[in-house]
Amino acid sequence: MGQSSEFSLDLRLEKQSLFVCKLELCELRMINDQNYPWFILVPRLNNVREIYELSEFSRGVLEREIFCISKALAGHFNAFKTNIAALGNLVAQLHIHIIIRYETDKSWPEPVWGKFPAAPYSRAQVQERVETVRKLINS
Amino acid sequence: MGQSSEFSLDLRLEKQSLFVCKLELCELRMINDQNYPWFILVPRLNNVREIYELSEFSRGVLEREIFCISKALAGHFNAFKTNIAALGNLVAQLHIHIIIRYETDKSWPEPVWGKFPAAPYSRAQVQERVETVRKLINS
Repeated sequence: MGQSSEFSLDLRLEKQSLFVCKLELCELRMINDQNYPWFILVPRLNNVREIYELSEFSRGVLEREIFCISKALAGHFNAFKTNIAALGNLVAQLHIHIIIRYETDKSWPEPVWGKFPAAPYSRAQVQERVETVRKLINS
Repeated sequence: MGQSSEFSLDLRLEKQSLFVCKLELCELRMINDQNYPWFILVPRLNNVREIYELSEFSRGVLEREIFCISKALAGHFNAFKTNIAALGNLVAQLHIHIIIRYETDKSWPEPVWGKFPAAPYSRAQVQERVETVRKLINS
């Protein structure tokens, strides 16, 4: 499943999101949209579209990464609800959304996809938020 | 987390979906909507809203049930893509959607939630499909 070749991130995901940190299996990235604290976990493997295509070992690691990251983010951002989803209808490369939701957010109670154009962070905001999340994950 | 008290299914989930079978942790149900082969896994526990609230053991079982069921359904229904999601913005009780998607389905490539009113199956169709999926899962 491409573990031996270098991991290549889908160009669309690269454009929409910012690198936060590397985990055992995944790259954690933040979607560049101030409307929601919105993150994605991207397994660093090529040619994987579906969770069930992962090995049993990788599925276990992914489960733990989803658990740790979603719990940490939900706590830090004081989530009302956490949305976790692997859709991949537009971008085939497997990626798991972790979206912190509030009853006061722009799309509540609907899912966030396709609702509003992304509101990019300023450079200073990106730096501050990415740094904060990096520390949170490594603590 | 309520393992000792009897499991009680949210009334809205009960109305929208049909019982397929019991797994180790979850109840597998089919959403009563012909627009998509659409299933939900509902952990038979009370007062759980988020995956990260489950015990490590239950998270492992849930991961395996998501894997087995999504793989079986994707194969049987010849999925173009499988959407897997835990949202819970409208129904608090933890439930995981497994939705079989085609490039030709009504909402493609968008997520299915909130797009079209459900198109209920006839009683005969329900019986046939539930029976088919039950056999698939138990095979």
